[in-house]
Amino acid sequence: MTTQEPQQIRPLGVAMIGYAFMGKAHSNAWRNVASYFDVPAFEQKVLVGRDRVQVADAAARYGWAESATDWRDVLDRDDIDIVDICAPGWMHAEIAIAALEAGKHVLVEKPLANTVAEAEAMTRAAQAARTRGVQSMVGFNYRRVPALALAKELIAEGRLGTVRHVRAAYLQDWLTDAQAPMTWRLRKDTAGSGALGDIASHAIDQVMFLLGEAVTDVSGRLHTFVSSRPGADGPEAVTVDDAAWASLSLTGGAIASVEVSRVATGQKNSLRLEIYGDKGTVLFDLEELNGLGFLDATDPVREQGFRRILVNEPEHPYMDAWWPQGHIIGWEHTFTHQIRDFLLAVSQGSAPSPSFEEGLAVQRVLAAVEESASAKSSTVQLTAPVSDSPAEGA
Amino acid sequence: MTTQEPQQIRPLGVAMIGYAFMGKAHSNAWRNVASYFDVPAFEQKVLVGRDRVQVADAAARYGWAESATDWRDVLDRDDIDIVDICAPGWMHAEIAIAALEAGKHVLVEKPLANTVAEAEAMTRAAQAARTRGVQSMVGFNYRRVPALALAKELIAEGRLGTVRHVRAAYLQDWLTDAQAPMTWRLRKDTAGSGALGDIASHAIDQVMFLLGEAVTDVSGRLHTFVSSRPGADGPEAVTVDDAAWASLSLTGGAIASVEVSRVATGQKNSLRLEIYGDKGTVLFDLEELNGLGFLDATDPVREQGFRRILVNEPEHPYMDAWWPQGHIIGWEHTFTHQIRDFLLAVSQGSAPSPSFEEGLAVQRVLAAVEESASAKSSTVQLTAPVSDSPAEGA
Amino acid sequence: MTTQEPQQIRPLGVAMIGYAFMGKAHSNAWRNVASYFDVPAFEQKVLVGRDRVQVADAAARYGWAESATDWRDVLDRDDIDIVDICAPGWMHAEIAIAALEAGKHVLVEKPLANTVAEAEAMTRAAQAARTRGVQSMVGFNYRRVPALALAKELIAEGRLGTVRHVRAAYLQDWLTDAQAPMTWRLRKDTAGSGALGDIASHAIDQVMFLLGEAVTDVSGRLHTFVSSRPGADGPEAVTVDDAAWASLSLTGGAIASVEVSRVATGQKNSLRLEIYGDKGTVLFDLEELNGLGFLDATDPVREQGFRRILVNEPEHPYMDAWWPQGHIIGWEHTFTHQIRDFLLAVSQGSAPSPSFEEGLAVQRVLAAVEESASAKSSTVQLTAPVSDSPAEGA
Amino acid sequence: MTTQEPQQIRPLGVAMIGYAFMGKAHSNAWRNVASYFDVPAFEQKVLVGRDRVQVADAAARYGWAESATDWRDVLDRDDIDIVDICAPGWMHAEIAIAALEAGKHVLVEKPLANTVAEAEAMTRAAQAARTRGVQSMVGFNYRRVPALALAKELIAEGRLGTVRHVRAAYLQDWLTDAQAPMTWRLRKDTAGSGALGDIASHAIDQVMFLLGEAVTDVSGRLHTFVSSRPGADGPEAVTVDDAAWASLSLTGGAIASVEVSRVATGQKNSLRLEIYGDKGTVLFDLEELNGLGFLDATDPVREQGFRRILVNEPEHPYMDAWWPQGHIIGWEHTFTHQIRDFLLAVSQGSAPSPSFEEGLAVQRVLAAVEESASAKSSTVQLTAPVSDSPAEGA
Repeated sequence: MTTQEPQQIRPLGVAMIGYAFMGKAHSNAWRNVASYFDVPAFEQKVLVGRDRVQVADAAARYGWAESATDWRDVLDRDDIDIVDICAPGWMHAEIAIAALEAGKHVLVEKPLANTVAEAEAMTRAAQAARTRGVQSMVGFNYRRVPALALAKELIAEGRLGTVRHVRAAYLQDWLTDAQAPMTWRLRKDTAGSGALGDIASHAIDQVMFLLGEAVTDVSGRLHTFVSSRPGADGPEAVTVDDAAWASLSLTGGAIASVEVSRVATGQKNSLRLEIYGDKGTVLFDLEELNGLGFLDATDPVREQGFRRILVNEPEHPYMDAWWPQGHIIGWEHTFTHQIRDFLLAVSQGSAPSPSFEEGLAVQRVLAAVEESASAKSSTVQLTAPVSDSPAEGA
Repeated sequence: MTTQEPQQIRPLGVAMIGYAFMGKAHSNAWRNVASYFDVPAFEQKVLVGRDRVQVADAAARYGWAESATDWRDVLDRDDIDIVDICAPGWMHAEIAIAALEAGKHVLVEKPLANTVAEAEAMTRAAQAARTRGVQSMVGFNYRRVPALALAKELIAEGRLGTVRHVRAAYLQDWLTDAQAPMTWRLRKDTAGSGALGDIASHAIDQVMFLLGEAVTDVSGRLHTFVSSRPGADGPEAVTVDDAAWASLSLTGGAIASVEVSRVATGQKNSLRLEIYGDKGTVLFDLEELNGLGFLDATDPVREQGFRRILVNEPEHPYMDAWWPQGHIIGWEHTFTHQIRDFLLAVSQGSAPSPSFEEGLAVQRVLAAVEESASAKSSTVQLTAPVSDSPAEGA
Repeated sequence: MTTQEPQQIRPLGVAMIGYAFMGKAHSNAWRNVASYFDVPAFEQKVLVGRDRVQVADAAARYGWAESATDWRDVLDRDDIDIVDICAPGWMHAEIAIAALEAGKHVLVEKPLANTVAEAEAMTRAAQAARTRGVQSMVGFNYRRVPALALAKELIAEGRLGTVRHVRAAYLQDWLTDAQAPMTWRLRKDTAGSGALGDIASHAIDQVMFLLGEAVTDVSGRLHTFVSSRPGADGPEAVTVDDAAWASLSLTGGAIASVEVSRVATGQKNSLRLEIYGDKGTVLFDLEELNGLGFLDATDPVREQGFRRILVNEPEHPYMDAWWPQGHIIGWEHTFTHQIRDFLLAVSQGSAPSPSFEEGLAVQRVLAAVEESASAKSSTVQLTAPVSDSPAEGA
Repeated sequence: MTTQEPQQIRPLGVAMIGYAFMGKAHSNAWRNVASYFDVPAFEQKVLVGRDRVQVADAAARYGWAESATDWRDVLDRDDIDIVDICAPGWMHAEIAIAALEAGKHVLVEKPLANTVAEAEAMTRAAQAARTRGVQSMVGFNYRRVPALALAKELIAEGRLGTVRHVRAAYLQDWLTDAQAPMTWRLRKDTAGSGALGDIASHAIDQVMFLLGEAVTDVSGRLHTFVSSRPGADGPEAVTVDDAAWASLSLTGGAIASVEVSRVATGQKNSLRLEIYGDKGTVLFDLEELNGLGFLDATDPVREQGFRRILVNEPEHPYMDAWWPQGHIIGWEHTFTHQIRDFLLAVSQGSAPSPSFEEGLAVQRVLAAVEESASAKSSTVQLTAPVSDSPAEGA
């Protein structure tokens, strides 16, 4: 494919936009991926941020050759092939669409956008770009937790039989203290939503990813337990949710409950998944991400029990690259695996997953939760997903 | 108090109705309670059941002096002071009301009844009887799990601060196999409901018990995954739920999620409770009923963590009666503790808890779940609870 | 068999000697065994103790028809068929030998005796009695934990392959506080030894029971961390061990480490066993006695993991008698199962296990630990076990 | 200090020798340490290995500017300030002594050497070098597990009171299969010992590190379960231990048991530590290295329990450099922390820990285990440790 040929000639040039939490995590992945995996050659060309001094410092610290302050300039550069967008959610649409139109492969952090409308526009741009060999991906990094990739394999192989129901939760506690200060993350106009967009998006993506199914209807609830927090100029209203609950129906007949909270005292980063099928069950907790619980209901009853698979064997997804068995890996390598898969897809000219369509599907479920929550939890039907065919919007 | 005086003269006479699963469990409690606890003298007088041979055999096996086949005859006996009702739910109202009117103290298995109307009638009868010194109690035995009694203490002492949200689940798997046969438990006309009445009732009672609050509104969902099962004469429709989900609002502002299932493969009898307050959290799982998880968020951050309290010390509720520390007790002693508390209340002339009013409150939440479930999960407001004052309905 | 015929005519008469901790636990078993298991008819005839008032009170509380203060008188009674000895260890030999000679079946609490010499005399008496149809058993009750009975089955079936090594530990903490007072249990002349005889005896019995092998040599160590404790008349020397360590060789080539402590702060009653074979592993902890850890190394590597079997299914040893799945049983039913098996053996005229020979084998290992400990841990060879043939000492 | 002055002028030049498992892990640390921690400037100058092609490939992959095949040449280079020795144990002494004499700061992988004699020579060289401002360190990386660094803090602060006994184990299973092939690691002449030197060294170092005490006597045992394995030319004798056991006395009066195995089926990399004091206990397992178990025995009994601290807070050692709470780190960052501390010590002119003296102390315990094992486990006294004063052997 024509667009891939330059890779034969020079390393792929990568630009990253944003250098906060996600920028640090993505940089780690770029800096290390080639030490563990066979990936096409690339260079960490340029890190983009608003503050000239800070972005230069971050670039030096995180392994980027240069820094820049205007992402539009970077999109104009011929030596940039990939744009990795770690900027805040409200900037995703503008940057991603411009980058795709400039012919750059795009990786954008989750959630895809702050609104369905933005996500739809991005998806149309991605579909158009895809016809030109320009790839795009949304960063639901937990798909690349080896234990969850293994769970996906087991489910796809039928080891769980028919999945009946799923319990998904994402529990954190960093807002437990009612005196924790106001931030942009707690204002609807900047953050879009609270726990819903930030962490329910991960939980919902996992439900669809693991089952390989779409959501057909949604009942939801949102709640803000601490409605006012100390701001710079006195108390300020919190305008996003602290916690969210949802019940989802899936195309295959399964039902998933989703519960997320930022005030679940003592739970630090506990994305939990329980998938109950008629032949088996898998359990997962992100706080112990190297393990996967599995019960095989086809074993003799006398020997049945939840086993904890330590997902650190060469037989496990991604793990032949790392350390000998039992030497656990950290959270950050979900990004390392993501970059590996993204680079391989780009070099092979294939569409990486999760696509913007998949990101949009999550966005629509989030919107349906909000809609239901504002209508006494009454169930909301989801309309058909965006077509995956070459986009008429191109 | 006049009505208690006969206890000074002769042991309390106890009759039990029903000898299946619950009859076996209650008998164990009656047979053993006096070996561990100081309780008023009593005698296991008579076991009542329909089948003359089987009930006689059960009486001999479980320590009852006699057996009988007609519960009405037993209510006529002067030597019977207490009636313990372990018959199926649809018989509760008739027997309990008759027993109370006959001046017998009544313990009735949960749930209080199959319908709100029955539960209301029973509550009126209990209120009337109470004015005459006749006591009544509904058997939500898990209130007497030492670990949950300890959780109640900790919450009441303010160790959790303001409770924000609760995650309650009761997961079993005995209906996982789609070929498991049809039974009366799976027909609405005999069982009232499925997982909802059977196990959600426990979960909902715990939420109200632990928080000491009432439910103000409910959104719910019910689902039957296996809609037909092998009956005696071919496939038969399952008319109750296999699983249920609910979101509850509580008077103190907390929100509780409830999820119950009989098809949660690998979960055997897992009543789980997670109570998140702004100063701490408690965790519980009935499959490890001697333990209680507790996190004290007022500890220095460096040392915070979920601790597992092995609730087997003399300092713990009920536990000074049993074995040295670390020698765990079994599920059946939730009933032993229940009988102990019931006997003490009866002998002291005080009203035992949970009362029929409390049983009715659970029943109303169950009904609201059904109502919401049949209305697209739309939130249902709960009306005010029955007055606890001496009943005008008497 | 002639000696069993009276059982056809009248229930077996049982006498129990001792009513402290073990007397309470054994009484519970006698009081309940017939409610759960089909056992020959028996009666709790008489409880024996030194203090006339206290033993009468205990008899009433624990379900014994009468009480008595002289065990010799009881041995003379024709209506007593079984003697259950829960008296302190230094009384075991005298009572047991007299009872066996009087033709009574004997169950004696572990450890068999305080010294090897006593244990040998008891074993000779048991062998002589056995030829006359009089049975005997030593109360290593943990053999009747359903999870350990299941472990034994799995090992006997070859599911672990060749066992290489065993880690056995029994950890308690009731002597952690250096100010805990002096008791008879901490004096060598009354207690024989400390943690060694009390809890290492259990751990060592389990190693031999689970593997079905004998110990061939021993290296050991004993230590007393708190050498003086408050006595009635001021500080008193502690003359037994607080903790013990041993390394054992077994006839099949396995090596077992044993570590026991009464000062393992936070461990309440944690008998832990880890059995490592070349095809699998089992793990156990008495504080969660309803569970058994099992890893099947013949599973595909991708799916291997320690599973936790909740040993509460009808398919599990002893468990068809109890409650539905997931309703856990308590520590005390290890004794219920022991009485059941003892009664069945007596009624069938077969020799129950563990026999006095097995109790003596444990005693010899304990003595070897002491011998090694007093010789700088140098390895001690164990002499051949007592012959199991009809005893020439009879 | 004179030798440190060049650091002001140019980055420290680093050479690493060896590029197998440990070389990969150390490279990861060098490549990433400056992205997370403030450390003096350095450059990954050269990677040294025997195979010219392979070492060049590894250098490119792991971030080294050049490669080389002769470590002696590298020691001659003026631009090299630090030598990180990841070569096999039998090469440690020669390289380390030469490097120290050449004025290079040295980090050497554990165990310090294959024999006590080598370790003594290395220690003398290190002591001599230290007087010239040349630093040295042995790579017991598990000291830099944040959870173990926290455990060390708690113990040093007296939170455990007087430590009575320690249970240390290191369990792996990569030799479970008797058909696993012969390697140099299973020959005494190349590996020195088996599980003893490889993993017991870690366990023993932890005991001394956590308690801050020395070992005074040792009883030990070694065993080889699979005495012959398939070699290139047929069956070959295994001449090192598969498992080892030891009992250690410590200067403060504590006793530690150590048990290590490479045939503990199902245990992958389970370094476990249990430290029992009279005021508290800590528990650790390397397979879940982000957690630390802690029981505070000064808490009210009613609330006591083992808590699991998720060691991922900014308040925890090393953790302010990483991710938000609950985002766990992997095994490899024990090395990142080690390099950070080594670099800081070098730049400050202070002696890093663990020193060669500390490495030698471990070596002497290992030798005592071997000596005891060959003398029927009879206790061996340890002679006084090497003086820490400037060495007369210099």
